[in-house]
Amino acid sequence: MPDITVVAVDAMGGDHAPVEIVKGAVEAVNQRKDIKVLLTGSEVLLKSVLAEYTYPENQIEIIDAKEVIETAEPPVKAIRSKKDSSLVVAMNLVKKKQADAFVSAGSTGAILVGGQVIVGRIKGVERAPLAPLLPTMTGVSLLIDCGANVDARASHLLQFAKMGSIYMEHVIGKKNPTVGIVNIGAEEEKGNALVKEAYPMLKACKDINFIGSVEAREIPYGAVDVIVCEAFVGNVILKLYEGVGSALTKKIKNGMMGSLRSKIGALLVKPALKATLKDFDSSGYGGAPLLGLNGLVVKTHGNATSKEVCNSIIQCVTFKRQRINEKIQEVIQLSQEENKED
Amino acid sequence: MPDITVVAVDAMGGDHAPVEIVKGAVEAVNQRKDIKVLLTGSEVLLKSVLAEYTYPENQIEIIDAKEVIETAEPPVKAIRSKKDSSLVVAMNLVKKKQADAFVSAGSTGAILVGGQVIVGRIKGVERAPLAPLLPTMTGVSLLIDCGANVDARASHLLQFAKMGSIYMEHVIGKKNPTVGIVNIGAEEEKGNALVKEAYPMLKACKDINFIGSVEAREIPYGAVDVIVCEAFVGNVILKLYEGVGSALTKKIKNGMMGSLRSKIGALLVKPALKATLKDFDSSGYGGAPLLGLNGLVVKTHGNATSKEVCNSIIQCVTFKRQRINEKIQEVIQLSQEENKED
Repeated sequence: MPDITVVAVDAMGGDHAPVEIVKGAVEAVNQRKDIKVLLTGSEVLLKSVLAEYTYPENQIEIIDAKEVIETAEPPVKAIRSKKDSSLVVAMNLVKKKQADAFVSAGSTGAILVGGQVIVGRIKGVERAPLAPLLPTMTGVSLLIDCGANVDARASHLLQFAKMGSIYMEHVIGKKNPTVGIVNIGAEEEKGNALVKEAYPMLKACKDINFIGSVEAREIPYGAVDVIVCEAFVGNVILKLYEGVGSALTKKIKNGMMGSLRSKIGALLVKPALKATLKDFDSSGYGGAPLLGLNGLVVKTHGNATSKEVCNSIIQCVTFKRQRINEKIQEVIQLSQEENKED
Repeated sequence: MPDITVVAVDAMGGDHAPVEIVKGAVEAVNQRKDIKVLLTGSEVLLKSVLAEYTYPENQIEIIDAKEVIETAEPPVKAIRSKKDSSLVVAMNLVKKKQADAFVSAGSTGAILVGGQVIVGRIKGVERAPLAPLLPTMTGVSLLIDCGANVDARASHLLQFAKMGSIYMEHVIGKKNPTVGIVNIGAEEEKGNALVKEAYPMLKACKDINFIGSVEAREIPYGAVDVIVCEAFVGNVILKLYEGVGSALTKKIKNGMMGSLRSKIGALLVKPALKATLKDFDSSGYGGAPLLGLNGLVVKTHGNATSKEVCNSIIQCVTFKRQRINEKIQEVIQLSQEENKED
């Protein structure tokens, strides 16, 4: 087995755990021979779920973990006190280099804290950003940071831009990805104190293809490949994106049910509408990576189905093969050396 | 004429100026006898446009202004140098108490600067927030602030909440409106430094009906009536709302044009779809007020049509009748006295 990617999967995290998580793992190993999944969670339970499926048995292993971290739990306390939780056990596998990557649909807060505390940051990385993909009219864009790093500094945003560009180019396959900073106007002099400080740093950076400010209105049109912002703004963008999309879709569907005429019309447009809305869905790309850590940590949606879990596991192979962390390390160390020379 | 509301309308500002602006003014005075419109702009041009319409002539007056402020101009410089612009002339009418209110579809930046510099703030108001209405599944919510007040302090957010509540209750007619602060989680301990500081101040305030944090995902569902945030976040919310809405609508429309079957279906659902999307449109309520100034300043969309201009002008009557500025003054002064007593 020359090049196997080992993925620790938190089988107990998420709205549809463990069934959809286990199913996603089964789908992944049935598609790819170069993956091994370590499922963490209640051994008895996971065995009974796995018994429903056919798969190459040497590619899935259960690692018993008796506790579960719930979404509502305070993250720091949960990570500290629940050492035998499926999430902490899976993260420790990455820490001990027994796994290359970690995938979970569980508590975002606990994943962010665990990533920093258990897996740990690459030397020189100041903050580890969470970087989900947003569906756009033309494909997908990477939104970085949506994590818990509120009140970021300009130097963090610069690192986010570099890490995001590497991910977008080598995992998503976008050549020389464009980078924009979220701003309240297109002009360079616009923005709050943080953006005004970060803008010239991004502009001067040779490692990225910075094209300036991006207004929120242009994001759904795919204006830039890597959307840089601090976590509070990123979180608002991510959640509003989902919220407006779901509300509008619901409103349109309800609207069509108003008369017999429109009901018949709705039946006729249904397949086209379904295909369109599927297009506007990023789960086919897998989950959101927490970048800059000593190993890959991937957060899928809390309501992830087996498809997203499967794609998240497969995404880890590309991450490993493309040596993303080594590339991040090189870029970060290079800029630190340049700073010393200055 | 016992109670006439005089509205100074910048007839040269906006994508469709002067035609749609003039048309909106005509529609307003044809609907209401208690409005007088002062149209500022090129007298020759406005006369020729007005000549197309029938309306009570004593209700519209042209005030000549030879210059125009363009959207791309730096706001502060434009306000200072273009004293004879339609925007500055109209704002000066409010300053000199020759008009109760100002309406413009022109440069947001120039309106924000002009509002503060020319019209001036009510005593005790620290910042004047721009407060557009967002369409939701259940009606509309007021988003405050979307203005140029970036890097706001917690005390500003508290004033925004008070002013927004007064507007929502007395102009939009929502009894005891709920107030939420935009946050990245529902729990009280979540947020960035600004939100963490503002949260307990909002919670302790007796003048508002504060219900806690609101996540961006819930905004389109009408989770709160008054959405409090600082201007950078507010601007992102406003523009992303428009962007996702327009992109998704376009995508759905294009998707329906893909096959003969869906094209026929599209024809059948068209009226229902149109009604639904019209529902998801706040222009029927008028423009966004810039609150806390010595007079009312209303910003309509840059691409406002006559309908939005007309509604914005009529909205000024309610604002005056309901004595909104007096109410704001009372609440602000009351809290200042309370602070002194503490």
